[in-house]
Amino acid sequence: MECFHSEAAWLEFLRNQSAFPVGFRAATGAISFAPAERPSDDPYTMNLALVTAEPPLSVFAGVFTRNQLPGAPVILARERMRGDALAGILINNKISNVCAPHGIQDAERLTGALAQRIGGRSRNYLSVSTGIIGWSLPVDQMEDRLPAMVEQLGSADALDVAHAIMTTDSYPKLRTARCGDARVLGIAKGAGMIEPDLATMLVFFFTDALVQRAQLQQILASAVESSFNRISVDGDQSTSDMVLALSSAVQPVDTAQFALCLQQLAQQLAHDIVRNGEGTCHVIKATVRGLHDERSAATLAKGVINSPLVKTAVYGNDPNVGRIVAALGDSAGSNGIELDPGQLRIQIGTETVFADGGFQLDKEKENRLCSYLRDSALEPALRGYPQHDRTVDIDISCGSGRGETTVLGSDLSHEYVSENADYRT
Amino acid sequence: MECFHSEAAWLEFLRNQSAFPVGFRAATGAISFAPAERPSDDPYTMNLALVTAEPPLSVFAGVFTRNQLPGAPVILARERMRGDALAGILINNKISNVCAPHGIQDAERLTGALAQRIGGRSRNYLSVSTGIIGWSLPVDQMEDRLPAMVEQLGSADALDVAHAIMTTDSYPKLRTARCGDARVLGIAKGAGMIEPDLATMLVFFFTDALVQRAQLQQILASAVESSFNRISVDGDQSTSDMVLALSSAVQPVDTAQFALCLQQLAQQLAHDIVRNGEGTCHVIKATVRGLHDERSAATLAKGVINSPLVKTAVYGNDPNVGRIVAALGDSAGSNGIELDPGQLRIQIGTETVFADGGFQLDKEKENRLCSYLRDSALEPALRGYPQHDRTVDIDISCGSGRGETTVLGSDLSHEYVSENADYRT
Repeated sequence: MECFHSEAAWLEFLRNQSAFPVGFRAATGAISFAPAERPSDDPYTMNLALVTAEPPLSVFAGVFTRNQLPGAPVILARERMRGDALAGILINNKISNVCAPHGIQDAERLTGALAQRIGGRSRNYLSVSTGIIGWSLPVDQMEDRLPAMVEQLGSADALDVAHAIMTTDSYPKLRTARCGDARVLGIAKGAGMIEPDLATMLVFFFTDALVQRAQLQQILASAVESSFNRISVDGDQSTSDMVLALSSAVQPVDTAQFALCLQQLAQQLAHDIVRNGEGTCHVIKATVRGLHDERSAATLAKGVINSPLVKTAVYGNDPNVGRIVAALGDSAGSNGIELDPGQLRIQIGTETVFADGGFQLDKEKENRLCSYLRDSALEPALRGYPQHDRTVDIDISCGSGRGETTVLGSDLSHEYVSENADYRT
Repeated sequence: MECFHSEAAWLEFLRNQSAFPVGFRAATGAISFAPAERPSDDPYTMNLALVTAEPPLSVFAGVFTRNQLPGAPVILARERMRGDALAGILINNKISNVCAPHGIQDAERLTGALAQRIGGRSRNYLSVSTGIIGWSLPVDQMEDRLPAMVEQLGSADALDVAHAIMTTDSYPKLRTARCGDARVLGIAKGAGMIEPDLATMLVFFFTDALVQRAQLQQILASAVESSFNRISVDGDQSTSDMVLALSSAVQPVDTAQFALCLQQLAQQLAHDIVRNGEGTCHVIKATVRGLHDERSAATLAKGVINSPLVKTAVYGNDPNVGRIVAALGDSAGSNGIELDPGQLRIQIGTETVFADGGFQLDKEKENRLCSYLRDSALEPALRGYPQHDRTVDIDISCGSGRGETTVLGSDLSHEYVSENADYRT
């Protein structure tokens, strides 16, 4: 990632690459409303973003949350993406339309309105929502706003859409790449532990690459596994997480190259989500190696990176390595993974802190580790753009097996508690 | 629990019941030392507590952490409790003796010194530690302190020992009961998520009840399952958790009645640990019912109670019920437990917030829930004794199965982050 010194420079960098690939058009809008369930009558502002494809797409793919109480958008999208054609997506923030009375009907009403205005059938459209769980969409007002947005299709680029879907994100997430003559563009908003109450990670890839629909599904699923499934969301799968890939399928590409390209964008966006997470003051990168399989490595890496004790210590720039060992041993014990302390080797940055069956610590090393943590910190005041791409690297080698993986997570800060203790007020 | 209005009244209440059962004697002491690994040279004060049994016990039982990187005290105790006799336990705070170079030898040196002074073999004694992981015990100074403590045996009661093993606990935990003519007394210090860096929950039961050794092990294991394994430690098993039950075995008892008695004490101590946890501002009690088995119910209840989003919302007195549903669905999805939203019913206190497939919310209900949360709060300023025994009750009914359980947990507060961000400094 390039380094930026102002929000303006950062936004200009994004703007220069934010034209949609061939075949897509977009518009954004906003409404003001007072949620019926909210104690206070102060209005909320809801952003709407509409992205359409003309002609309707026949190449699209989706990966959805495994949460057992999914929201109406997930239920509807799972069903509709089995169909033949996709003509557009309406995305709103502020209310996630999860388990709300009449949630499915509300979503269907919005897609029906889109079909009426733009053409096609209601089932060719998706309504995607992120925000508070449990409350109902202000569906009358949303529907009233649609005709003007349809008229303005083409007026918004991908950066405008990335802005519109933000909730507590403090800057938009957009990544692009070229794959031969084809373009791939991805936008995202935050997730789970990182984007908590909103409880939704939304990611959309738009491309003009000519791939088969079944291939795209496979490529997307694999890219998600090594990116969004490798960030610390506390094991969280929100009620509304979804990653969609949509292609106008006009530019011939090398499929393997396209797969790599999509994987890289997914990893970059996953990193962006963690770095701009609520209250993130350090990005932690935990690598676990030498286990029997990758799944075990991922279990242990997530155990370490999700430990509130490890997270608070990193926040305090305190290299409390005992907590890493405690979390590692706990995670192994709870998941039936055997560890041999004699084989264990733990490194933080370039310092070895555990080897030969025990800790290897002294005053000078502790001081160097404190400096390393301080140097990796993000300054909460400067949140309008990514300040740097440094991470706190924890490398854990458990033996001679081939299973290994890397997981990204965030620390646990006062900023996190403050944002989440009274999020809705 | 009775209600107390001052620390003095609370301590007097405990003191009046803190004599050890027949057969046990104790002494406490302290040393000042500067850990070799610590950047600063400021000294730490370490408390020592010695409890001995004369004659040595033949009835004792233990339940230990499943952490795969256990501390030297756990490794040694597991082995020694397979032996015939137990004559005494030395307990220290501040340093947990986990994966420290020569940790086992250090513990053996201490128990050897006890054997030499008191009689019996080194293997008849245990060295139990709680505190920072990774650093080494100041074993020379500890050994020097032992002769005076042996001389003073009998000078300390169980409340003194409960005090000595405290780390960030702000008051001692002691519970007692009578079972016919026998007495049972339990002391504890905090745990895992609740007592984090110290990363150790230590519980000791002392009794004179005449039970068989195998029975005691079974009774203890069952009591632990319904108490300490049902508090929110984030699934945490620290490197040093242990629960021991020691009996001088002189008073005949009804075994079933004794088992019930031990279970109740264990549940009370578990509750005490959560209520006095680091930064606990609310005790949350989550009950999950109607599942196929108790294990599934426990998985979901822990999923809800360990969700950082649920915890921060409760801290902020914000009845953000969407987060409960998100955590429940996530936990079910991640663990292969099916949920039917149509069967789901969620109650907070006396308010139904989810039923008939959707949320049941309105402004007045939200206001009543806010009041309920505020009324359940603990005042951080008044931490020298338990202020009240109120809990935030979340009752989740998932269907018609018979599997159900209740789990206790704490909220996630600024106090928690502060205590853990710079615990060692």
